[in-house]
Formats: sequence, C-alpha cells, structure tokens
Amino acid sequence: MTTHRIPGGGETELYVEEAGPVGAQAVVFMHGLSQCGMAWDAQLRSDLADRFRLVTLDLRGHGRSARPPDGYGDSDRWADDVNAVLAELDLERPILCGWSYGGIVIGDYLRSYGAGALGGVVLVAATSRMGDSAMRFLGPEFAGCLPGLLATDVAESMRAVESFVRLCREREPGPDEFYRVLGYTAVVPPAVREALLSRTIDHDDLYADLDLPVLIVHGTLDRVILPAMSEHLAALIPNATASYYEGVGHTPFREDATRFNEELRAFAAKI
Amino acid sequence: MTTHRIPGGGETELYVEEAGPVGAQAVVFMHGLSQCGMAWDAQLRSDLADRFRLVTLDLRGHGRSARPPDGYGDSDRWADDVNAVLAELDLERPILCGWSYGGIVIGDYLRSYGAGALGGVVLVAATSRMGDSAMRFLGPEFAGCLPGLLATDVAESMRAVESFVRLCREREPGPDEFYRVLGYTAVVPPAVREALLSRTIDHDDLYADLDLPVLIVHGTLDRVILPAMSEHLAALIPNATASYYEGVGHTPFREDATRFNEELRAFAAKI
Repeated sequence: MTTHRIPGGGETELYVEEAGPVGAQAVVFMHGLSQCGMAWDAQLRSDLADRFRLVTLDLRGHGRSARPPDGYGDSDRWADDVNAVLAELDLERPILCGWSYGGIVIGDYLRSYGAGALGGVVLVAATSRMGDSAMRFLGPEFAGCLPGLLATDVAESMRAVESFVRLCREREPGPDEFYRVLGYTAVVPPAVREALLSRTIDHDDLYADLDLPVLIVHGTLDRVILPAMSEHLAALIPNATASYYEGVGHTPFREDATRFNEELRAFAAKI
Repeated sequence: MTTHRIPGGGETELYVEEAGPVGAQAVVFMHGLSQCGMAWDAQLRSDLADRFRLVTLDLRGHGRSARPPDGYGDSDRWADDVNAVLAELDLERPILCGWSYGGIVIGDYLRSYGAGALGGVVLVAATSRMGDSAMRFLGPEFAGCLPGLLATDVAESMRAVESFVRLCREREPGPDEFYRVLGYTAVVPPAVREALLSRTIDHDDLYADLDLPVLIVHGTLDRVILPAMSEHLAALIPNATASYYEGVGHTPFREDATRFNEELRAFAAKI
C-alpha cells in the first residue's frame, strides 16, 4: 500500500492510498458521508490488486484528509479534488467508483471536467441528488438519524453515529469492524456532515448524458439510500448495467465482497 | 471466545468475555478510563488461552456494558461488579489484572471484600489514587486532555479523544487499530468519564496491607500515568515485583505483548 498527500481544490490536502501495479487499469474509490477510504479495504487488500491499480481517496473533511472549515458547498472544489488525484497519479482512463455520497462527487467532477478522461463509472448505492429532490430516496431510519448526526452535543452525536454505523449494514459486523468504522465515522466534525448534507444538487442531467460504461450496484435491503435510487439511475443512464444484491444493506462491497469484486473485475477488464 | 452478560452492582448489566479452559487458573482483566475489554485482545487471542482462563470485564459505562446515569462514585458498586464476575463464573483464587483506572477498581474490590478470595494481583500502569493526591502521578499531556475529555461539544470532545488515544501509545498504531480504539473510546459518554475522574480515592492503605503476590508493570515512556506511580506502589506493596518496559508507553500489554504475556504466564504459573 502506497500513500500520497495530494493538494486538491483550494490546496486542501487529500489523503490517498493505492495498491496494485502502477501501469494497470485504475479504479478510484470514493466513500460516502462521514466514512473514509478504509471502507474499501476488502477491495484494496484483495486479489483485485494483482491486476488493477486501486486508489482510495479520503474525501475532504474525512478520514486522514484535511478538514477545512468551509469549501464543501462548491461543486468545483469537489471536482478539483478528483481531478487532482487523477492528474497527480497520472491515471489514464480511470474508472471512478462512488459509494453513496460518492455519486454526488462523481457528478461534481463530470460537471466541471466532463467524461472525456474517464474509462467508466461504478455507482454503489450512490445518489445523484441532494436536498428536497433526494428525500424520497432516503431510508426513513437514516432520515431519522440526520438530526443526531448534525448535533453538537457529544452524547447525542455518538448515539446517532452508532445508529448510522448499524444502519449501513444489514447485519452488524463483529466488534473489531464495528468500532473501527465507528472511529472513522465519529472523527468527521458535524459541521462537515452538515455542509455536505445541506447542498442542493441534481446531477441527473449529467448521468443521463453519460456516454461511458456504467455499473450500478445496490443492496435490496439498503436502509440508507433506497434501491429506488439505483433503479432511477439505471433508467436514466444509457450504458448502465444494474446488479442488485438480495439480503444486503448499504455496503455491498463489504457485505458481499466476493461478488462485488468479481463484478468489478469483469467490468474493469472490459474498459 | 465466550460472552456473558452478568448483573453487577445495582443490577447494572456487565459485558464479560472469556477465552481458555474453564477449570484453569483465571486472570480477570480490567481496562482503564474510556476503554473496553477489547484492549486485552493481544492476551485473549494469544497462546495464554491454552493454559489460563482469561476473562475481560467491560467496566460499567464502558464498551458493551450498560451505561447507567449514576452509580460511578460509589466504591461498593465497583466492588460488587468485580465480585459478581468472580461469583458468576465461579472463579477460584483468580488473579485480578488492572490497567490504569483498573487499579482503582481492584482497590474498590479489596476495600469491600478483602483479598481472601484472590490468588494474585497484576497492576499495569495502574493508579491507586484519584483526585488531588493523584495529580503528581499524571502526565502533563494527559492532564491537558482532561477538559476536552469532559467537554460536551462533539468537535472538542473528539479532538481530545484523538489526542488521548495517541497519548496511550509511544508510537501511533496502524489505522485499523487506531480507529478501533478511537471508536470504543469515543462511545463512552463524557458524563461517565467525569463521574470516574471526579472520585477522590486513596487505596494506598489497602495496597500496603496486600498479602498476595503482585506483579507491577509500567512503560518508562508512559505519558498518561507516570512511572513514578508504579515506583510508589512497588515500595508500598510487600510482595511486589516491578517490571519496567524501556521505550514503551501506557499500554505495555499491547506495545510489547510478547514480553507482557511471558511475564504474566510466569507469574500466573506460580499462583
């Protein structure tokens, strides 16, 4: 595993990890709200790294990237973050793989830079929208967590973080994994969560025009982003293939890493 | 690994894990402030479990034990917690092993129940005192963390939790371990931390009278409880052997688990 610290939009320092051969087809993984690049361990530590160059980005405000007080509401900043990673690592026709909020960040990139430099897109339980137009795609339990995730009182905040970590999986993981995820979820300041959640975004126009191979993955029991969001995107995107995981929650790449990695391998091999 | 939920003092439900043969010499591990039984993984998952019965207790308010709003200031409650574990698991002449605040809990037990049912005591970077008389034994960086650990604002609280987790080790562990510890440290409500820290305790009289084999372990670079505390206890306790770990911080049983496990094995074999 190699780590990088890359200046992104507005010179915000971004933490990036990679595994796999430098010359290979690249996949850039982008996590969701209040998570970090470690979410993709079951990919980076898998045999996918024998064949592909696997890159994780800790989004601004998250994980080991810098946590600037502002700059989260500006689509260009997010786009510049992604572009900085692509440029700094000199990635040729990479696949962008976005989980949950990662679908917004991919849209931010597409709006600024277009799809010309990309090889493909993978959307995992991803959303193209934030704000009122997204509400019908949110699970009610997740919506119920949101006030707590924005609370500044630590006891209320931690209760919401615990609930959110549990909501992300259909079945609770063992304590090692539970507390590890809890740890990196908890370090993200509520102000950062609020800045992300208060954006009003609709990237549907970009996804409808996306002229690239797209793989859509969603767990049928997702309680954070409802499968209806992926059905919506699958209908919208011209070259999309959708794969639904029965009995799986918001983290198909962790809950059924074997299947996810196989499908990602097959998708990436064709780019 | 077997888990138990045992009603402790005031019927507070305590989370207990054990590994190793039921009939073997038992060691009951008690963690420090804002930690949990998972701190002892390098013992429970080691070959110590081939020969000894290893038991971890999540202290009240911590980890997977219940978090009652009060009952933390009463020495009898803590004593009853320990006694409940000994009674429920039917432990014969167990060794009590207390880390940091665990030294207070062992003292609480001794004050209520005496040493008659015990086989030995291990004190790891442990304190016998809380309050003004303890201040000179606290590392200045740890003392500087305390206001943040009691803060109710989540950003301030999490900054202190991150600092505290780093202070507990001489060298920062990898991210898996760092976030796992951060997770279980962060879930302990500040009100629980405050209740523990606001006790005024001096168990020196009990330790001075302790007629049992005692092993004292301390890292020479401990920045939480200074090695002077163990020197103080070693001078006080009649049958104590002290072992100082050069270049090690507040978690000798993690930072040098091999040495700690060997010394614990040798100590326990003689009980």
